[in-house]
Amino acid sequence: MKKEIKIAILGAGTVGGGTVKVLRDNAEVIEKRLGAGIVIKKILVRSLKKERSELKEFSLTDDFAEILRDEEISVVVELMGGVDPAKDYMLQALRAKKSVVTANKDAVAAFGKELFAAAEENGVDFLFEASVGGGIPIIAPLKTSLAANKITEIMGIVNGTTNYMLTKMSDDNADYAEVLSEAQRKGYAEADPTADVEGLDAARKAAILASIAFNTRVSLDDVFVEGITKITAADIDYAKELGFAVKLLAIGKNSPEYGIDVRVHPVFLPQSHPLAAVNGVFNAIFVRGDAIGKAMFYGPGAGAFPTASAVVSDIMEAARDHLTQNFGRLHCTCYESKKICPIEETVSSYYVRLLVSDKPGVLGTIATTFGHSEVSLKSVIQTRKASAGLAEIVAVTHAVKHKNILEALDNLRSLTTVKEVQNTIRVENTDE
Amino acid sequence: MKKEIKIAILGAGTVGGGTVKVLRDNAEVIEKRLGAGIVIKKILVRSLKKERSELKEFSLTDDFAEILRDEEISVVVELMGGVDPAKDYMLQALRAKKSVVTANKDAVAAFGKELFAAAEENGVDFLFEASVGGGIPIIAPLKTSLAANKITEIMGIVNGTTNYMLTKMSDDNADYAEVLSEAQRKGYAEADPTADVEGLDAARKAAILASIAFNTRVSLDDVFVEGITKITAADIDYAKELGFAVKLLAIGKNSPEYGIDVRVHPVFLPQSHPLAAVNGVFNAIFVRGDAIGKAMFYGPGAGAFPTASAVVSDIMEAARDHLTQNFGRLHCTCYESKKICPIEETVSSYYVRLLVSDKPGVLGTIATTFGHSEVSLKSVIQTRKASAGLAEIVAVTHAVKHKNILEALDNLRSLTTVKEVQNTIRVENTDE
Repeated sequence: MKKEIKIAILGAGTVGGGTVKVLRDNAEVIEKRLGAGIVIKKILVRSLKKERSELKEFSLTDDFAEILRDEEISVVVELMGGVDPAKDYMLQALRAKKSVVTANKDAVAAFGKELFAAAEENGVDFLFEASVGGGIPIIAPLKTSLAANKITEIMGIVNGTTNYMLTKMSDDNADYAEVLSEAQRKGYAEADPTADVEGLDAARKAAILASIAFNTRVSLDDVFVEGITKITAADIDYAKELGFAVKLLAIGKNSPEYGIDVRVHPVFLPQSHPLAAVNGVFNAIFVRGDAIGKAMFYGPGAGAFPTASAVVSDIMEAARDHLTQNFGRLHCTCYESKKICPIEETVSSYYVRLLVSDKPGVLGTIATTFGHSEVSLKSVIQTRKASAGLAEIVAVTHAVKHKNILEALDNLRSLTTVKEVQNTIRVENTDE
Repeated sequence: MKKEIKIAILGAGTVGGGTVKVLRDNAEVIEKRLGAGIVIKKILVRSLKKERSELKEFSLTDDFAEILRDEEISVVVELMGGVDPAKDYMLQALRAKKSVVTANKDAVAAFGKELFAAAEENGVDFLFEASVGGGIPIIAPLKTSLAANKITEIMGIVNGTTNYMLTKMSDDNADYAEVLSEAQRKGYAEADPTADVEGLDAARKAAILASIAFNTRVSLDDVFVEGITKITAADIDYAKELGFAVKLLAIGKNSPEYGIDVRVHPVFLPQSHPLAAVNGVFNAIFVRGDAIGKAMFYGPGAGAFPTASAVVSDIMEAARDHLTQNFGRLHCTCYESKKICPIEETVSSYYVRLLVSDKPGVLGTIATTFGHSEVSLKSVIQTRKASAGLAEIVAVTHAVKHKNILEALDNLRSLTTVKEVQNTIRVENTDE
């Protein structure tokens, strides 16, 4: 008899539609590789009244309970997005001993612990590859291919909107507002861009990545977040001059000394770093492990078909477990409770741009002020501005604690010769 | 009772030593992630007489039969290298119902079919992540995370020696011979560099990657191979001028029209291509699939610890199957027999560098000669050389069949105005 695994898909939007199409168009290769066919038994839609000609061959329902009580359905694929009611539907499905596959970063970042626990208790799978980096394989490789490593660092470009905007600002020497409205026109940024430009989307992904990389539960509240709204064309210009690219990164670091340190913020990244060449809407996740050294995973971070690529591969993984009745191979790996390092104690180099009086001795005063807070400078650029007797000073510091840079900035602001601290951006020093 | 999986390691060389060290240093994280400890029960060495202080805590043997008949050993890890006796040992281990993990590209490329068949017949695993790209996860992601895709193209920088040499030639404007002797001094190239510089090492990896990507057995004999020995500083100069990087690539393409096409040769690659930024001894594999679009996997292609990272992750994968007595989740996926496209029929753009008489009308004659073989030109650069009334012409063609370019080159050589066809290198046109 032909082997089959029956599934239900919740949501018929962009990713839901892409998933249905990949399952249909690639049914033959999927069946041959898996050794069983994947059959979509039901699709949950919000309203049965809406015309959906592309789904006419499928059985649609607007009643989740119908899916829940269908014992033939072994895998529930949640592609509705948002926390409510997606989280509850997933919990109910897991409790009904159905494996769950999801692309929902919000629900995983906020309720991962509960969802994992429900999967383990009920002996089924909870898989979420598509929740970070769209189609890029990163969750499964972290849990399997890199499992021999102590991971010390994970850094990702995990938000396509902001990477598109920063790339555009760099290529065209354009300012933030200009690029944002262009991104909105092209559909790369939403009408309300807050979640992207303020780093909140990236923060959810940072929490998920750090939880897996460091085997400890990192929640959204543990993530320090700073967006890209303060980045100007001038900052990007200085970055280029100093040999850096400006990227919004999700960063997780694990040091025996400081504990876990998870943050999202703009970074000056050396041009030679593999992430510096990741441009436009592409995403990439860079991983440092004690055995492998450095590795990077690159690909499309969003879009119906790339996301469907990850979703369908998770469906196949769940199907393998249902076919062999062998679950929990990759159980929840958050077996530790590591200390989260407070942001004040985190260590980084900084780029600081100051507007100062164009007078002799200013540079000396500034360097001394940094020194009082134990901040030593690696390089300084001073430029004369045409207007009003003002000059711009750009300093790059050596690695210091965040609290020291905050103190130094406070002291600088109190100097009469310092008119403004225009921007402060972390500099990622790669140690190679 | 504490769960344990007992293994044997064959070979105590560089990779064997690295594997032992990773298993020992990371024993705690490995046990927590796996839910069981990995115990090295025996290590096969060539001679018991050699002093091995770093292995004194382990039980060494020079008799493979001892490992074979030890029923407690569930996984045999082959890190001897070479085909003999590695292949026979692996077959014997599989027939004794022990899973096999190997880093041996020679044995996998030449005897993959036999080894896979033995694993399936005996219901155990045959895993070989470390055989391509050192520590980079690529075999497992192709079989799992990208399993929803029809893969249309796979292109890899899979030989660190030649990538180091080409990077060095480009950075220092140096010639081949100079860079080779430097690479040999630094230990990046062997005393006999043939396997690397002639592309034979890359060809084995190309065969393995194409077999998995296209679900059809590709053997070494199916791979067209051309090395980097003819690349000169002048070619690299022209490449830069035209916006390309020069890379030795392992390429597999799958088109419904031409069939499977697997080759290793130098390529002019657009600077904007993600592989163009992969420098030095690093490796990367670029994959194009119908759902995901483009993805790339980047990391260290060699070295004791990166290779051990892949080997130990495979040991953990095999251990999961032994713990649950559930094998063959990822069976051999070469379920098709696709036609291999003869090299004459493969399609590519070409860079052609000619030494010609510096006379009016030469360019026209050359363009006409190309045209007679249906080769149309995309761009032409003509430079005057100081010496002896000769000029250099560099032409880049549109995509043509290999047989057409061969015919055009034959005809060009017969012209009295053409003194020499100095080099011909394929140009990879990315369609974006």
